[in-house]
Amino acid sequence: MAMSLKNPYPLSPSPLSSLHVVALAGGVGGARLVDGLAQVMPAQNLTVIVNTGDDFEHLGLHVCPDLDTVCYTLAGFANPGTGWGRIDETWHALESLATLGGPDWFQLGDRDIGTHLERTRRLKLGERLSQITRDFCNAWEVHLTVLPMSDDLVQTWVYTDEGVLPFQEYFVHRRCQPRVSGFSFEGADHAQPAAGVMETLGLADMVVICPSNPWVSIDPILAVPGIKSGLGAKFVVAVSPIIGGQTVKGPAAKMYAEMGIEPSALAVAQHYSEILNAFVLDQIDASQAAALDDRGIPTLATHTLMTSADDRRRLAKEVLEFAVKIMGEKPPERRKSI
Amino acid sequence: MAMSLKNPYPLSPSPLSSLHVVALAGGVGGARLVDGLAQVMPAQNLTVIVNTGDDFEHLGLHVCPDLDTVCYTLAGFANPGTGWGRIDETWHALESLATLGGPDWFQLGDRDIGTHLERTRRLKLGERLSQITRDFCNAWEVHLTVLPMSDDLVQTWVYTDEGVLPFQEYFVHRRCQPRVSGFSFEGADHAQPAAGVMETLGLADMVVICPSNPWVSIDPILAVPGIKSGLGAKFVVAVSPIIGGQTVKGPAAKMYAEMGIEPSALAVAQHYSEILNAFVLDQIDASQAAALDDRGIPTLATHTLMTSADDRRRLAKEVLEFAVKIMGEKPPERRKSI
Repeated sequence: MAMSLKNPYPLSPSPLSSLHVVALAGGVGGARLVDGLAQVMPAQNLTVIVNTGDDFEHLGLHVCPDLDTVCYTLAGFANPGTGWGRIDETWHALESLATLGGPDWFQLGDRDIGTHLERTRRLKLGERLSQITRDFCNAWEVHLTVLPMSDDLVQTWVYTDEGVLPFQEYFVHRRCQPRVSGFSFEGADHAQPAAGVMETLGLADMVVICPSNPWVSIDPILAVPGIKSGLGAKFVVAVSPIIGGQTVKGPAAKMYAEMGIEPSALAVAQHYSEILNAFVLDQIDASQAAALDDRGIPTLATHTLMTSADDRRRLAKEVLEFAVKIMGEKPPERRKSI
Repeated sequence: MAMSLKNPYPLSPSPLSSLHVVALAGGVGGARLVDGLAQVMPAQNLTVIVNTGDDFEHLGLHVCPDLDTVCYTLAGFANPGTGWGRIDETWHALESLATLGGPDWFQLGDRDIGTHLERTRRLKLGERLSQITRDFCNAWEVHLTVLPMSDDLVQTWVYTDEGVLPFQEYFVHRRCQPRVSGFSFEGADHAQPAAGVMETLGLADMVVICPSNPWVSIDPILAVPGIKSGLGAKFVVAVSPIIGGQTVKGPAAKMYAEMGIEPSALAVAQHYSEILNAFVLDQIDASQAAALDDRGIPTLATHTLMTSADDRRRLAKEVLEFAVKIMGEKPPERRKSI
């Protein structure tokens, strides 16, 4: 075609074209920022490490909600309405199961079930989740590297006033209604980072902690032995999932409040204090930036809500350029507390 | 509505209204005759014992092809084009799995997958297949009793010139192409008849062996200890699945030929010689009736091809009325060979 569309974010000769980035991500918010990153830097230089603490066995299927949200988003067939599942989806299997009185509280679309059936089949053959995910990404033409945090089973438990609940039981079945008092990541102590995680971290120039839930999306990743200390030598920038004291989606703000902490971008920065070099928060929280700057955490205030594809690209570019600028100004060093 | 449709097969005061019948069935042909039986006699007097030797675990799902074909047919949502699966079906899960390189040789529709997911879930909880099937039938408003032959695992193996193959591997994956030399029913020796099978057999006035494959649909049922001897005290009538030396569907005729037996209605009657009291064959095979009558097996020649719903009812009524007539003429006795 003779049309000449100007790319608003040319990759070259931008310094972003040679940057090696590792992103840490949970579900929707993380997936959207990673999708933005993938559009402003070369895919071969970008790796996303995804939370698998939410993974669970349901109806005999090994379901990986965050991995699938990230992969479906990058593949371009995430359901934009729900934040999970696939576009153009049908629900006939679950309708059929519900007719028989089966448990239908966890929504599984038909195309989505195909993913789970094949993943479960290969896991049962003894294959690693990281290899399966790599092959799925190839089939879906996702060109960056998507890694589960671990090939071992790590299970997030939510401590609540109604007992200790598996994550999906709390999150989906109970709709985050029970009051939270803590979390644990069963199996994390003995889990190993998935094949490729430590190698990629070692080569990275920068780590981006996506705007995912700190308690149940990022903390499980950091709980896998080796990953947190691996971040120690890297420049780490985090994007706040809390905007104006609230979350775009999910229970992060509610969790902060129930844990006795006022939900805010500042609280998120404090959450990551041991590993943070720079921080990005929404412009409506700009007043908190000065406090963080004062404590030695350079902070960018910008529009962080990603509603359009352009929002994703713009935020990703701003985060990377901000981090590159700070990295140029001062070498990475660890802050012990904010 | 003011319309008065004359029921062509009034149940009362027909002698069929008090008859207790057990049918033995495999897939399509069996399902169709059972559907006909259910329409010419009270559902509460009819029980069908279904082959489960074809059952297999596929993609982690416990699939029961014959049970499902029978139940879907009785529920009115069998796919009339294929003979298996459901009407108004979609294939999104399998398409999605195939995109990922998964095995898609066994066709599973989305609604059908819902059945398998729920059955598998309940089996893993330790529930019996017979109870699960009973509950499914209630949900699907199937009013007669459908019983698997056993709650224990029995697996049909097909001995061929290309090795010993699990049934579905031979039947679906290899499209019945390997040359057959024999069969075995692994686990049958130690299997027990499913809950309800022997009790229902004990109360039955008559057993109808449906026009199913003698080798791989009916023989597995008879291989479950107790069932064959349970038929010993009953009047047994069989309907030939072989018409004019061929089968309507499936490999029965091919199997007879490969086993060195000319495929014919007569060969089917000989197959069942130890348990047979009366036989029904197609009118195009009427010339074989005399030979059977001579050997003490009263034989009815009629239209046995069931293409319409009316065919099913008519054939069912003819089979029952013929059997009732013969039962009135002579008491059940076993023939050792034809």
